[in-house]
Amino acid sequence: MSKRIAGPEIERLIQLLAKVPGLGPRSARRAALHLIKKKDQLLGPLAGAMAEAHARVRLCSVCGNVDTSDPCMICTDPRRDPATIIVVEDVSDLWALERAGAMNARYHVLGGVLSPLDGIGPDQLNIKPLVDRIAAGGVVEVVLAVNATVEGQTTAHYLTDQLSESGVRITRLAHGVPVGGELDYLDEGTLTAALKSRTAF
Amino acid sequence: MSKRIAGPEIERLIQLLAKVPGLGPRSARRAALHLIKKKDQLLGPLAGAMAEAHARVRLCSVCGNVDTSDPCMICTDPRRDPATIIVVEDVSDLWALERAGAMNARYHVLGGVLSPLDGIGPDQLNIKPLVDRIAAGGVVEVVLAVNATVEGQTTAHYLTDQLSESGVRITRLAHGVPVGGELDYLDEGTLTAALKSRTAF
Repeated sequence: MSKRIAGPEIERLIQLLAKVPGLGPRSARRAALHLIKKKDQLLGPLAGAMAEAHARVRLCSVCGNVDTSDPCMICTDPRRDPATIIVVEDVSDLWALERAGAMNARYHVLGGVLSPLDGIGPDQLNIKPLVDRIAAGGVVEVVLAVNATVEGQTTAHYLTDQLSESGVRITRLAHGVPVGGELDYLDEGTLTAALKSRTAF
Repeated sequence: MSKRIAGPEIERLIQLLAKVPGLGPRSARRAALHLIKKKDQLLGPLAGAMAEAHARVRLCSVCGNVDTSDPCMICTDPRRDPATIIVVEDVSDLWALERAGAMNARYHVLGGVLSPLDGIGPDQLNIKPLVDRIAAGGVVEVVLAVNATVEGQTTAHYLTDQLSESGVRITRLAHGVPVGGELDYLDEGTLTAALKSRTAF
């Protein structure tokens, strides 16, 4: 705001809200006003939830997930198969796979992908703990659920090299037509991969 | 999330963030993860700013603005002309006019517009305090800066009726071509109004 029209508390709230992904300066003002209008229904509870998360959330020292307990809820869940580890780039990928709910496995969060131009080498990622975790035994399969980008695939190749002598089975996600997808909108690479991996009907 | 994958703190944070305008369920997850990753730079300060706003922000008993002091910073600013009151529907409109910074006046926030179908009559709006404020004297001009919608104009007409015997000058915002706007994209009503109110070049 060009002039000060309200106490610094409201301006600070708007400035911080504008840093939340999904909100820009304009929507931060709208959000701030909505929060102030819903003071007791939303602003108060959200302030509390944030303070709670700030105080209690930490990284899982086993898999790199975020949780309020360490090891995290997934690593300590006795119903999950400890023999299968799904390797993901980010916690958001872990959440996406959990929403799909297709596998009852454990995870390992790399915290990024290899990207030499950005100065991200193996030491900047959560790779050494993965190698140690597998060396400790009990793991039969590692599913490389990295993104289908150049960096993701480079990272997958690097991990395959690192784990080649561990004896674990290394798999990756299938390429193909997204469920509900229309062929007309898909790129050639995906269509070629879907044809190559065609299955009996 | 279909299964519980993290402590209830994170899920509660996502649920509350999804209620912020501008964020949906998907972007709330992204926002929560970003906040957790920037725990000390963003999550903590934002939690603090929200708690502060929750504890201190109130409605100005004079004009209906939101601020941490009552009367608000605008109502107590000695450099503002107390003879001119700009009437707006919402605090967001007050903020928009303040960003423009075109007038050094005071404000009155109605808190909505007349809308009989939604059960909003004069008693549901901050109208009586406006009439009292003007009856108390010292006001020369009331600028009706309501939106150019049917409800906004209905409200403007109602206010004009209510203030007709007060002797104050009642004005409204000019209609015309937005600065930087292209004629081709404007509706007929705006173009007609802009032609009617044409000024010497």
